[in-house]
Amino acid sequence: MFPLEEWFTLYLYQQDFIAKEQLAISPDDRGYYFGDGIYEVFRVYKGELFEADGHYRRLELSSADTRIPLPYSIPELHAKLLELIHLNRLREGTVYMQVTRGIAPRSHPYPAKAEPVLMAYCNELKRPLQTMQKGITAVTSADIRWLRCDLKTLNLLPNVMAKQQALDLGANEVVWHRDRVVTECSASNFMIVRNGEIWTHPANHLILHGITRDVVIRLAQKLHIQVHQAPFKIEEMMSADEAFVTGTTVEVTPVISVDGVYIGQGELGPVTRRLQQAFEEYVGI
Amino acid sequence: MFPLEEWFTLYLYQQDFIAKEQLAISPDDRGYYFGDGIYEVFRVYKGELFEADGHYRRLELSSADTRIPLPYSIPELHAKLLELIHLNRLREGTVYMQVTRGIAPRSHPYPAKAEPVLMAYCNELKRPLQTMQKGITAVTSADIRWLRCDLKTLNLLPNVMAKQQALDLGANEVVWHRDRVVTECSASNFMIVRNGEIWTHPANHLILHGITRDVVIRLAQKLHIQVHQAPFKIEEMMSADEAFVTGTTVEVTPVISVDGVYIGQGELGPVTRRLQQAFEEYVGI
Repeated sequence: MFPLEEWFTLYLYQQDFIAKEQLAISPDDRGYYFGDGIYEVFRVYKGELFEADGHYRRLELSSADTRIPLPYSIPELHAKLLELIHLNRLREGTVYMQVTRGIAPRSHPYPAKAEPVLMAYCNELKRPLQTMQKGITAVTSADIRWLRCDLKTLNLLPNVMAKQQALDLGANEVVWHRDRVVTECSASNFMIVRNGEIWTHPANHLILHGITRDVVIRLAQKLHIQVHQAPFKIEEMMSADEAFVTGTTVEVTPVISVDGVYIGQGELGPVTRRLQQAFEEYVGI
Repeated sequence: MFPLEEWFTLYLYQQDFIAKEQLAISPDDRGYYFGDGIYEVFRVYKGELFEADGHYRRLELSSADTRIPLPYSIPELHAKLLELIHLNRLREGTVYMQVTRGIAPRSHPYPAKAEPVLMAYCNELKRPLQTMQKGITAVTSADIRWLRCDLKTLNLLPNVMAKQQALDLGANEVVWHRDRVVTECSASNFMIVRNGEIWTHPANHLILHGITRDVVIRLAQKLHIQVHQAPFKIEEMMSADEAFVTGTTVEVTPVISVDGVYIGQGELGPVTRRLQQAFEEYVGI
């Protein structure tokens, strides 16, 4: 019997389940040259892929618009990811998967013959219960990304740089804005609460269409909380009653300050808390 | 004695020269997860790195602004690249080199301990003499890239997608524009000639600061051709006398049509030809 840790290093690479140590990426993988790939991060609760259909729909959009073919049909992919979870005995965590355009000598045009390269693995991850109570801090930052932020691609350097910028400033996250219109955070969507109603950027080409964002909007509507998917500015954020982020791993986490200024009372607010509770009920955890 | 082909597969990976077949990239390389790396493509003429200082200066800018450290000092790196050329017996071609932020479990913040990963190789490549005479065709396309196009990073998906868009439309390249102001092409800089004077987008955050662009501007000035590094619009391009691209591998190549409409006479024009000749004299080829 292997110790548990070793089981957690099994990766899915193309059609094979192999130990991480045996996994060698080709230097000609277009993911390595160009970030020419797409990805998803799934949440696993109780051994199940949470909101898998939403992730697959988004993956298919990313695939269609980048013309990076998926190596499996969605049902086949789903079966493979469940097998990965099973082999790694994962109960609570994440599944990361990416598909690159394939392996070919470096040249910008899409290669005629390359086959897409799939890599997936899973990690144990507990829910961030403490952070969901205490909240996080954020700083504003100019959103300088390209204009297809709805595609979940491996071109993540702006996200990486923004996250580091936040940490360097002693904050947890950035709140991105374009000409003072708030878009989202570097790895999560962003919402504010004003007078008991929610505002969040419309799901257009300027933000990622978050799966948790969708779930939270649906839950809010069930709770008869009005949701405005409409642009709002930094000023409206700073004078909001509450602010929070949504995301696959952060779930619903309050943002208690931006640029060093408290949002509302600077603590987990009542609307955010109701959404957290509704989310837990929805997940069944 | 190895056949020549085998010599051409020697890569520089970190401090070692190894056969391409032995090279295995870690799945945890941040280049693979995030495109979190920077790169340069050098031209090799007569076994020498052309305009090496310009490439190193730009590499240092990319390194500074992304905070991806270089694994070597520039003199050490230069010696390594010359050794790579020597080992591969390259006379005329390119050296590709990239540096990623390093190897670490996937997480957006810059890892505390990761060491940068250097990979470099060279390829034989003849000068595109025929294309330099015949010219290329282009189509206009909205420039939707991020706002740090001056950094030469591995986040190249917009470039790759644009190049493919051009090919799908039966053209060779795109001419990118932001709100009808022409910026550059997907892998080269772009210039027009009007009344014997050259116009090209200023070297700010919206274009890559091309090494060949710099050389051509200096050569034009020596030839007493006025160069305006100033924005110009699609309309001015369409009514220009000549248009051409500059780049490490394309050198100075005329653009004979855009969106199916001839630029000027739709052939290699006199100013472009003079610059080609001046370039050849400068290189000494």
